[in-house]
Amino acid sequence: MATRWLSGQDLHGLLGTLPLQFPAYQDLADRIRYLVVDGRLVHDVRLPSERELASTLGISRATVAGAYARLADLGFLVPRRGAGNFVRAGPTTRGNGLVGPYPDFTDLVNLAFASPPAPAGLDEVYRSALDELPAVLGGHGYGPQGLVSLREQVAAWYGERGLPTAPDQIVVTNGAQSALNVVAGTLLRTGDRVLVEAPSYPNALDALRRSGARLVAYPLPEDGWQVSGYATTVRQTAPRLAHLIPEFHNPTGHWLDEEARPELAAALRRTRTTAVVDETLVELRLDGQHPRRPLAAWLPDALTLGSASKAFWGGLRIGWIRAPRVLIRSLVQTRALLDLGSPALEQLVVARLLAGSGVDVEEQRSRARMQRDHLVGLLTRRLPDWRVPTPGGGFTLWVGLPGETSSRLAAAAERHDLLLSAGPRFFPDGGGERHLRLPFTAPRQHLEEAVERLARAWADVGVSSPRPGTRRPWDLSV
Amino acid sequence: MATRWLSGQDLHGLLGTLPLQFPAYQDLADRIRYLVVDGRLVHDVRLPSERELASTLGISRATVAGAYARLADLGFLVPRRGAGNFVRAGPTTRGNGLVGPYPDFTDLVNLAFASPPAPAGLDEVYRSALDELPAVLGGHGYGPQGLVSLREQVAAWYGERGLPTAPDQIVVTNGAQSALNVVAGTLLRTGDRVLVEAPSYPNALDALRRSGARLVAYPLPEDGWQVSGYATTVRQTAPRLAHLIPEFHNPTGHWLDEEARPELAAALRRTRTTAVVDETLVELRLDGQHPRRPLAAWLPDALTLGSASKAFWGGLRIGWIRAPRVLIRSLVQTRALLDLGSPALEQLVVARLLAGSGVDVEEQRSRARMQRDHLVGLLTRRLPDWRVPTPGGGFTLWVGLPGETSSRLAAAAERHDLLLSAGPRFFPDGGGERHLRLPFTAPRQHLEEAVERLARAWADVGVSSPRPGTRRPWDLSV
Repeated sequence: MATRWLSGQDLHGLLGTLPLQFPAYQDLADRIRYLVVDGRLVHDVRLPSERELASTLGISRATVAGAYARLADLGFLVPRRGAGNFVRAGPTTRGNGLVGPYPDFTDLVNLAFASPPAPAGLDEVYRSALDELPAVLGGHGYGPQGLVSLREQVAAWYGERGLPTAPDQIVVTNGAQSALNVVAGTLLRTGDRVLVEAPSYPNALDALRRSGARLVAYPLPEDGWQVSGYATTVRQTAPRLAHLIPEFHNPTGHWLDEEARPELAAALRRTRTTAVVDETLVELRLDGQHPRRPLAAWLPDALTLGSASKAFWGGLRIGWIRAPRVLIRSLVQTRALLDLGSPALEQLVVARLLAGSGVDVEEQRSRARMQRDHLVGLLTRRLPDWRVPTPGGGFTLWVGLPGETSSRLAAAAERHDLLLSAGPRFFPDGGGERHLRLPFTAPRQHLEEAVERLARAWADVGVSSPRPGTRRPWDLSV
Repeated sequence: MATRWLSGQDLHGLLGTLPLQFPAYQDLADRIRYLVVDGRLVHDVRLPSERELASTLGISRATVAGAYARLADLGFLVPRRGAGNFVRAGPTTRGNGLVGPYPDFTDLVNLAFASPPAPAGLDEVYRSALDELPAVLGGHGYGPQGLVSLREQVAAWYGERGLPTAPDQIVVTNGAQSALNVVAGTLLRTGDRVLVEAPSYPNALDALRRSGARLVAYPLPEDGWQVSGYATTVRQTAPRLAHLIPEFHNPTGHWLDEEARPELAAALRRTRTTAVVDETLVELRLDGQHPRRPLAAWLPDALTLGSASKAFWGGLRIGWIRAPRVLIRSLVQTRALLDLGSPALEQLVVARLLAGSGVDVEEQRSRARMQRDHLVGLLTRRLPDWRVPTPGGGFTLWVGLPGETSSRLAAAAERHDLLLSAGPRFFPDGGGERHLRLPFTAPRQHLEEAVERLARAWADVGVSSPRPGTRRPWDLSV
């Protein structure tokens, strides 16, 4: 269930750790505005009362009142008599982070989505899958576990990757997001601890939170997992589940060394922590790396999530869960309750794609590699102060900004009709203002236009390190 | 989140109101077995301890121990040392009520699903929708609200039915089940009261429960809604939401008179109760009735759920929510978190179907009408003691049994390879043992075979009215 109201503490947590600059009411209004623009404060959520927020932050009620009035003037807040102040995520804001924009947008350049257009040949695969449709049209069309023919292909794909798998270990879902909701709904109870990477994929964090879990973070080092550190975090937090994106990590593009896998797995086994491994981007190895054996090869209890959305196309809403047999029936029950089953034709299409029919994944990789290198080049030239590492896989750059400016930059970019996902969206509990995720999946000319707008937005923001002597009426530390 | 363990009180509630017959341990085991076979006790749920159940039911611990041992012998229970007794819904049980069976079943006749095979011409609609696919293949494929072209068709369909609707009032979902999950996830908080009909559609009851709602029941009279009674229930319970299936009600096939609608709507408005109107079966009017104006015509705040699964085919996993504009953004946010969006081609197919292309709904109706009359005839001849009303629409008969035998019958039928949904599955809180839902969507020869097996199972059960003088060690009244 979505949170539809916010406590003073909740908002305090979202506002981050910078001091308020003078005039405080305006800075507070700006920060709340960034949260709305960035999708961290969603439409129609109720803000804390002036009195509560002032008390939580230790500032005057007049400051909060001034900030709320300004937000109402700007159209980001709707006061409703007797009911409180409600966020308005207007038509020019994204509403839900990575997920938007709503389909009616036109002039925007979208660097919030990491999802390319469909590859050549996909429409032909749809067409050929129609030949198999008559065989299923005679049935009622439901099947919460998924068509056997698709599950066979998925199982074979795991087998080729060094992880023997039977078709009855697979549950087909509507993409990996749906798969994660099914897993969380089956295994988690309110208050269970779930270990996540920080940063991580925001929609995964949201889904886990929605299931009532308490997220604990493993701060991912700049160059990827440091296994002894990961093991320490596991030991100290003894989480129920550990959510991992071992290749290619979203947003950083890191992958977990094959040599590191047994040790990491052993750490999870010691605390009887169930691993939930998101492999959505595993096919997107951009530098000719040798495929690694799936993490589940060392973790018989792990649940592995896969998807056709990234290797093939986002408009194919088919994903799956690979799980130990003992969990399958419970997963199918949860899944059925959510939406009864996946569409028949889409399943036939994905079965063909996994069988190697029609779409060349290597061509997908090659296109992604060129786009990646193009975006890295553009950024290096136009924004030389930014740190722009080249990821080994996936669809996104995770760039370092020379200041805690990510939210401000996202808000400024919006005024240039450029959609960004600010760094904090990728963290379970604050942080991230020094980073920005930039997908390289948009067409070439969009990338060029995007970097132009990015540079203009950056000029608007500048580097806002706190100046010495700046008035700090209070300090938001969480 | 699914409940994965059961308190003594929970199980007490499920066991119903009959007295235990001698020998008590065996009767208790049988009743628990019915709950498993029927999908009311799901796979892997933990039963209460012997001590707790004995105490709740006021019987000896030896009786409970005997029942659990018998269930373990029969393979319905797995004791795990130190962890408790866990339900095993074996491969011959359905696991999730209406939703099963798992796709590997072969010899079963399935009267648990109310879903016919696809109509003639559907594969051609798929084929022609491919012509529009290239236009969307160039995009990223995501769009949590749904394709504009589909939303336009859905909006027009409401308009034709006397309910003017704009495309931006529609959110496309993966079927009506997914739509209800989105609505519940957006509007309900734990503990909110939701008024439901008793009986009602089991998967809807499950989804509402899963969202943390407390279900309160309006006992639907034998001949459909009695509006003053409904209004009294609304006034007394002042629920947050009211879930309604006004035409054609699942499982009874009733419809709500157009004259009754304004009064019923007024009752809901007085308590500021939001109506959630499931219109999944609205196109299935089988007796040439004049279409009624949707209930939302009298309730501007209502949310209406629709689906392509019943009017067209269950393998099309496309449904939608029609909602007031003020709620759309929040609904889209919740929806995006569940699964990001609906598949592109399926949306194009349903847009064509709603535009009247390729599939003749009147032919669907005509087929359903013949099947209905055929099943009514078979039952009247073979099971003359049963009360078999002829519903005006929908896909199911709601037959009256001459005794509180529905669960026993479903369990007996399973031994004849016939899947049934026992009456209690359709009630939010017990009751229903005198009713059975029988879908008439299976092919004609399946219906004939089904009624044969039904008659044999009925002979196994007989009418089990409590005999005078039967030992009643305790009385399960809830």
